[in-house]
Amino acid sequence: MSNRPTSPLNPRERILMGPGPSTVPARILRALAAPTLGHLDPQFIEYMDDTCQLIRDAYQTKNLLSFPVSGTGMAGMETIIANLIEPADEAIVCINGVFGGRMKDNLQRCGATVHAIEVPWGETFSNEAIAEAVEKHPNAKMLGIVHAETSTGAHQDLSGLAEIVHDAGMLLAVDAVTSLGGHELKVDEWGIDAIYSGTQKCLSCPPGLSPVSFSDRALERMDQRKTKVQSWYLDVSMLKNYYTGSGGRAYHHTAPINMIYALRESLAIVMEEGLENRIARHREMHLLLREGLEDLGFTYIPKQSLCTLNCVALPDGVDDAGIRGRLLSEYDIEIGGGLGVFAGKAWRIGLMGHSATKRNINTLLAALSDVM
Amino acid sequence: MSNRPTSPLNPRERILMGPGPSTVPARILRALAAPTLGHLDPQFIEYMDDTCQLIRDAYQTKNLLSFPVSGTGMAGMETIIANLIEPADEAIVCINGVFGGRMKDNLQRCGATVHAIEVPWGETFSNEAIAEAVEKHPNAKMLGIVHAETSTGAHQDLSGLAEIVHDAGMLLAVDAVTSLGGHELKVDEWGIDAIYSGTQKCLSCPPGLSPVSFSDRALERMDQRKTKVQSWYLDVSMLKNYYTGSGGRAYHHTAPINMIYALRESLAIVMEEGLENRIARHREMHLLLREGLEDLGFTYIPKQSLCTLNCVALPDGVDDAGIRGRLLSEYDIEIGGGLGVFAGKAWRIGLMGHSATKRNINTLLAALSDVM
Repeated sequence: MSNRPTSPLNPRERILMGPGPSTVPARILRALAAPTLGHLDPQFIEYMDDTCQLIRDAYQTKNLLSFPVSGTGMAGMETIIANLIEPADEAIVCINGVFGGRMKDNLQRCGATVHAIEVPWGETFSNEAIAEAVEKHPNAKMLGIVHAETSTGAHQDLSGLAEIVHDAGMLLAVDAVTSLGGHELKVDEWGIDAIYSGTQKCLSCPPGLSPVSFSDRALERMDQRKTKVQSWYLDVSMLKNYYTGSGGRAYHHTAPINMIYALRESLAIVMEEGLENRIARHREMHLLLREGLEDLGFTYIPKQSLCTLNCVALPDGVDDAGIRGRLLSEYDIEIGGGLGVFAGKAWRIGLMGHSATKRNINTLLAALSDVM
Repeated sequence: MSNRPTSPLNPRERILMGPGPSTVPARILRALAAPTLGHLDPQFIEYMDDTCQLIRDAYQTKNLLSFPVSGTGMAGMETIIANLIEPADEAIVCINGVFGGRMKDNLQRCGATVHAIEVPWGETFSNEAIAEAVEKHPNAKMLGIVHAETSTGAHQDLSGLAEIVHDAGMLLAVDAVTSLGGHELKVDEWGIDAIYSGTQKCLSCPPGLSPVSFSDRALERMDQRKTKVQSWYLDVSMLKNYYTGSGGRAYHHTAPINMIYALRESLAIVMEEGLENRIARHREMHLLLREGLEDLGFTYIPKQSLCTLNCVALPDGVDDAGIRGRLLSEYDIEIGGGLGVFAGKAWRIGLMGHSATKRNINTLLAALSDVM
């Protein structure tokens, strides 16, 4: 056993412009540090109810079953899939980056037969291509698609998709990790049946929770299950009592109390700014950054780029790790490297939530001009 | 969409003496609120390494694979079971309360055939009873047992158990949610192969993480798996690169950065106090509370009581919910009701970490004298 004293905690105040986490504002950090309540304390239950309502508001949904999963965004993905899929079910998944691939892996671990449709990284899917896949695999129970591919910066248009998927009797499941609170996202209007996100992206809350929402159609599917959900921790049939209050507030697991405080505060900030204003701000900041990056010789990889995550190819001769290292060590600015097939060839620059400001963009562009 | 403003966050400063969370000291809340770093930031990686080393120290183990699971204690249970059990494996589980029962449920969801041995709630298992079960089910791959049953307050003696379990070629898996940092717990000396705990009990950190540790024997078992772990989020074969640094710090999921700050701080506090001193304090406080409760007519349910959780039968005529409600609303003191078969008949009074003080005990006993 070591008896060495642990050094004092003193994290540097980085500007976080990578693929997440984004910079957390002081107001959310203060909420995080409020006194811890018990998870069955009536006051905490009120805060949890507020949080669930704010999740509904941010997703633009009336779905009763909207709540924060007690894990990060990937736990949200697993919650959706493990609860909606039973062994031997078929599912369609659209893969154009890392996270579509992870959906496939998750589906297979739940025993599903997966029909993957793929386009090159950085591209997005047309409704025609999806309609074709749906027609080809009529027994699929679910179609999974990524709204905002954090690995490529591609922005998937979801309009008109639900009709295709629902007409075939399937559920529409969506990854919105990098879009919630930064891009237009209308769960009810777009007919999304199951959706998950993360707290550390456009909500600018620390990582640790995953806001999810399920439609009535998804609830029916879960009620008809013949097998138990393979994950105890993520089993919605047990979780829903605690989050919706139906049948009392049965204890399942201890909710991450202080993280709920922070998420509630971050969603309150989103609503104070107003969803439309916030989305407009992300768009405006994206255009500003884009102009600066293109002036420096960077080119955007996706045709349909996210505003919240800017994935750009490096100009010839740029030292990927070297320059990112200098941005971090000399300027306290974090940006992200490429993931998967883009490793070493692309950067991912986040403009999410509290990080999406003119000040940060100017600071980054000036630093880049210095070091390149 | 609601446009009502969210009320300011203002949680009451409760004295938390229930089954968890315990009261979180200001120093840990301050650590929680430190500026958020990226999960691949070299400074954060150092903090994570510190945290893993402190987890080893607290568990008194040299196990390399010791890390905080990104979920609460129940996610730790699922991590242990999902990684060590494959479909059609047999397992033995010792049930003397809620959490042994949950182990069984988790094992079954992983496809195991479960042999449960049971004693009445509040009692503990003799090594003879366990040896008999091991002999009866020689094909079992694992024996699961709860060190500190949070539902009954029973304290399971684990000495001598590993020999029985290992001689039969099985792994020993232990629930230490309510004992880590409050009771003697010697993972290496006691031959424990897999163990999980929670942050919100005797570490007095907010809930949200689960410190786990795996022995080399457990690692070998995982390396020999023929099937993928059914949970992507909790798959140790992918997680271990990030936490141990072997094969680079591959991105798996975004670690809950600020919760790691808080856990690191809470474990540093444990080590500053010293494990032996801390355990002695929990014992001393338990004896003090016990004397006071017995004077008031309460009787301890388990023969082998935990120091950290005091499960007592209510004297005749005591209004369970009414008095607990008054303690909370008039005195800002939280204690826990009975769980499962003890609902309405017992209280669970926690003396964990920062909550285990003479001041809190006197305050609680005085309040109880007032309201009873």
